[in-house]
Amino acid sequence: MQVTPAPVTKLIDEFSRLPGIGPKTASRLTFYLLRHPAQQTAALAEALRELHQKVVFCTQCFNIAESDPCPVCGDEHRDRSLICVVEEPLDVLAIERTRDYHGLYHVLHGVIAPVEGIGPEDLKIAELVERVRASNDGVREIIIATNPNLEGEATAMYIARQFQTESIKITRLARGLPMGGDLEYADEITLSRALSGRSEM
Amino acid sequence: MQVTPAPVTKLIDEFSRLPGIGPKTASRLTFYLLRHPAQQTAALAEALRELHQKVVFCTQCFNIAESDPCPVCGDEHRDRSLICVVEEPLDVLAIERTRDYHGLYHVLHGVIAPVEGIGPEDLKIAELVERVRASNDGVREIIIATNPNLEGEATAMYIARQFQTESIKITRLARGLPMGGDLEYADEITLSRALSGRSEM
Repeated sequence: MQVTPAPVTKLIDEFSRLPGIGPKTASRLTFYLLRHPAQQTAALAEALRELHQKVVFCTQCFNIAESDPCPVCGDEHRDRSLICVVEEPLDVLAIERTRDYHGLYHVLHGVIAPVEGIGPEDLKIAELVERVRASNDGVREIIIATNPNLEGEATAMYIARQFQTESIKITRLARGLPMGGDLEYADEITLSRALSGRSEM
Repeated sequence: MQVTPAPVTKLIDEFSRLPGIGPKTASRLTFYLLRHPAQQTAALAEALRELHQKVVFCTQCFNIAESDPCPVCGDEHRDRSLICVVEEPLDVLAIERTRDYHGLYHVLHGVIAPVEGIGPEDLKIAELVERVRASNDGVREIIIATNPNLEGEATAMYIARQFQTESIKITRLARGLPMGGDLEYADEITLSRALSGRSEM
């Protein structure tokens, strides 16, 4: 006998489609919402409805924003000769939190990952090249801040190659020991990078 | 600078209010939805909207259903002299899956948990007593299927006491070794229950 109401099954199915949420978690979430006042469910539904409606991509840096250009690209006080290239919008957030960077961004929306079938044409790399060219030598440096892993490094190399013939400085975030880290537990690649990138005190 | 659009922050906040979902998971889910077609987000929003709208509680057994009475209570072929008392709607599902039970249910919607401030009056216990009395001796047996833990046992005892003066048979699900379990790894309470509840072969 079908004892679970169809709307419950439907919501469990929808939750299960989210990454990292299996059928068990999905049904726990659904029954949690059922037991709680309808307002919480309504607020979540409303927040979801607004997500794609109100969020746009900035046509300059491809970061998510409520306006186009985004607040960073639209800010007169940011250094327009610096572009920091990141994988995801969350990376912009991480860098903004340091309060140490005052240039612009460029969000790739992924990395080159041949195994998953993601090539350079699926990312905003052509748009970056176009943007830099259109700036008429206004861009002095491109900081490539993709993640320090296989895909991130490959993507960084690919981007660097696009600007080979130009006089733009291409830099990469420093690799080394993380603050609060322990030498004893550092992997050999990190340690070897920390050694080769050592700086005078 | 506020670089995260308000609708994104709002959805992250709403996801974070769900049990077992922290701010990191919430933002991962939000960005996942942002990267995927709007239809998936819309489908989730719609499923949420329908949850409280279309799901009602059966006024007899308090299980969730699309109709009142629910399909089980409304089924002429179920044994009306048997009531199985469970904690949650999901427990009904678990018992239905055995295909071995053909009586009715009564969903308590929780267990007595003094630490969390949940007393008998917060559960559907008075409703159970009322329901059994209204049946005019139609109910022959009440199977208490609360979970085999501290709160479940206490709740079972409390319910059994409500029917002390009546001639109704009160039973409890058997405790013992789970199928596929290993004697070596069974805890002593389970093993002691399995011993005292041993049956002839």
